[in-house]
Amino acid sequence: MTVPDAAIARAAIGVDVGGTTIKLGLVRDDGTFVARGALPTNAEAGPDAVLATIAGGVRAMLSSPECAAPAAIGLGVPGVINDAGEICYPPNFPGWEVVAVAERLRPLIGTELPIVVENDANVAAIAEARAGAGLDQPDFLYVTLGTGVGGCIIAGGGIWRGATGGAGEVGHVSVDLNGRPCNCGGRGCVEAYIGQRYMTAIAAERLAAEPDSMLHGMIAGGATLEPRLLDEAAGRGDTFAQTFLEEMGETLGAALASALNLLDYRTVIVGGGMSASEAWLLRAARRSMRARALRSIGEAAELRVARFGAEAGMVGAALLALDRGHRA
Amino acid sequence: MTVPDAAIARAAIGVDVGGTTIKLGLVRDDGTFVARGALPTNAEAGPDAVLATIAGGVRAMLSSPECAAPAAIGLGVPGVINDAGEICYPPNFPGWEVVAVAERLRPLIGTELPIVVENDANVAAIAEARAGAGLDQPDFLYVTLGTGVGGCIIAGGGIWRGATGGAGEVGHVSVDLNGRPCNCGGRGCVEAYIGQRYMTAIAAERLAAEPDSMLHGMIAGGATLEPRLLDEAAGRGDTFAQTFLEEMGETLGAALASALNLLDYRTVIVGGGMSASEAWLLRAARRSMRARALRSIGEAAELRVARFGAEAGMVGAALLALDRGHRA
Repeated sequence: MTVPDAAIARAAIGVDVGGTTIKLGLVRDDGTFVARGALPTNAEAGPDAVLATIAGGVRAMLSSPECAAPAAIGLGVPGVINDAGEICYPPNFPGWEVVAVAERLRPLIGTELPIVVENDANVAAIAEARAGAGLDQPDFLYVTLGTGVGGCIIAGGGIWRGATGGAGEVGHVSVDLNGRPCNCGGRGCVEAYIGQRYMTAIAAERLAAEPDSMLHGMIAGGATLEPRLLDEAAGRGDTFAQTFLEEMGETLGAALASALNLLDYRTVIVGGGMSASEAWLLRAARRSMRARALRSIGEAAELRVARFGAEAGMVGAALLALDRGHRA
Repeated sequence: MTVPDAAIARAAIGVDVGGTTIKLGLVRDDGTFVARGALPTNAEAGPDAVLATIAGGVRAMLSSPECAAPAAIGLGVPGVINDAGEICYPPNFPGWEVVAVAERLRPLIGTELPIVVENDANVAAIAEARAGAGLDQPDFLYVTLGTGVGGCIIAGGGIWRGATGGAGEVGHVSVDLNGRPCNCGGRGCVEAYIGQRYMTAIAAERLAAEPDSMLHGMIAGGATLEPRLLDEAAGRGDTFAQTFLEEMGETLGAALASALNLLDYRTVIVGGGMSASEAWLLRAARRSMRARALRSIGEAAELRVARFGAEAGMVGAALLALDRGHRA
């Protein structure tokens, strides 16, 4: 008697190529891990060295006894992936311009498995669509709150790529045409408020005028002023931190309302580091988004916290590879 | 000898159901007219009367000798069209809630031809995609500047409907989270600046402090303060009108930049009444949009004036009916 194929959990290797760390996981189709590992990226060593590190990690995973027969290999990488599957000008990766990652990895790994490459925010969105907070939603906007504010438009369960594969840049939806300058050259982009470095800079400016905030003591005690510290202080009752995060949430909600109105969407899934600030940042963002969107949209609009955190890239890359490998 | 099918221009009847006038045209697949006509809508008489008027107009067109064998009938209507093809709560049409227009028209017209119903901004975008300024562009954002600011996202040559058929509401992309209140309940929506009534109201506020503007004389002479009058005054050298329209264009450009960033698009096609204000409004909008968008997008971004004006609804409805009728 043979076990029917459908009863065997399918699995793929997912690789999250970050600027500091390369994370690798053998991931089942329900988003759980069979095995996982991590290697330093050493991005400054250039593309050849980084590709060799990725290939070495994947080879090691393929040859380990618990990793029998993954169906495909997926990579989540920074930057835009063009229609030819090449990665274009990934930020913080010196020496990369346009690199055909899958083509160059195949001989280095020595595999015939399908290799799928996609933008990191897009694969994180796929993790939510296939096995996370978006399982019941064919259409949603995924937003990731980290150093920058990235995103992805999921339409009919798949990535909506726009004209050149870069759609979903919700971080560069402006909330104020005369607002803070953004590194992108625009003004008032929501990233220029909510992006980690920007938010920290705005908080530092404001904090100087708030002698009563417990943040002064926390910083004097060795803590670094960053969004997570603001969230911690807010949780401990610091009024400055609470008000500040609520204002940031209000701002995020304004950008999300614009995006929902344009896309005719009802669901936003928020991942990335600051998605942990449910009580202050996200609660205010949810309220603001619902109040500001067109009534037919706002009344039904949901802001959900992502299921996957630091593992989103591995899981999404693996699940996308299972999708596309299957089709290939 | 028979003429090959491909050599015969296909044609369809396109109906533009406006709040005041129902326009009907027999339109060739290149967007030119075989015949056209118009009837008063009498929207206040309710849906039965309006549907009877539409059916009467279509029947008359079908029975006229020059209208041999249209391939399909298309209607552009206000409001959102749901997935079942029903029109939902069209604004300025008293007594309409959710109406299955095609189903109800078929027996009234007495035809077996395919009947296609779509939102009015969406059909105007299809006119540009099939026979207008978007012929060479599979992906563009269509914006119509009228009483409101409507829009449509064209993706891969077709309408991108979003989750419920209402996508493309670029008028409700906000340019200022603390800006002017919009009728939709939001704040700083670009429609709250560029929409005809809003723009007129803002101009009237400002004009009080501008005794030198020639607009005072034009209004005293019987002209109505409205965007077209501002454009006329700007063309005649009025500095107030020029500066005002440039500011409005700057505002429009900010909303367009947000939309292009989110969609990863490079092309905007502007239709509707104020698309005639190329020299003042649109030139400033183009500059603002290109400067504010992400560099990779802004450098290649184009703002084009629509080919079709008042006839956009008829042409687009007919061309969409040819598309869908063919597929059906």
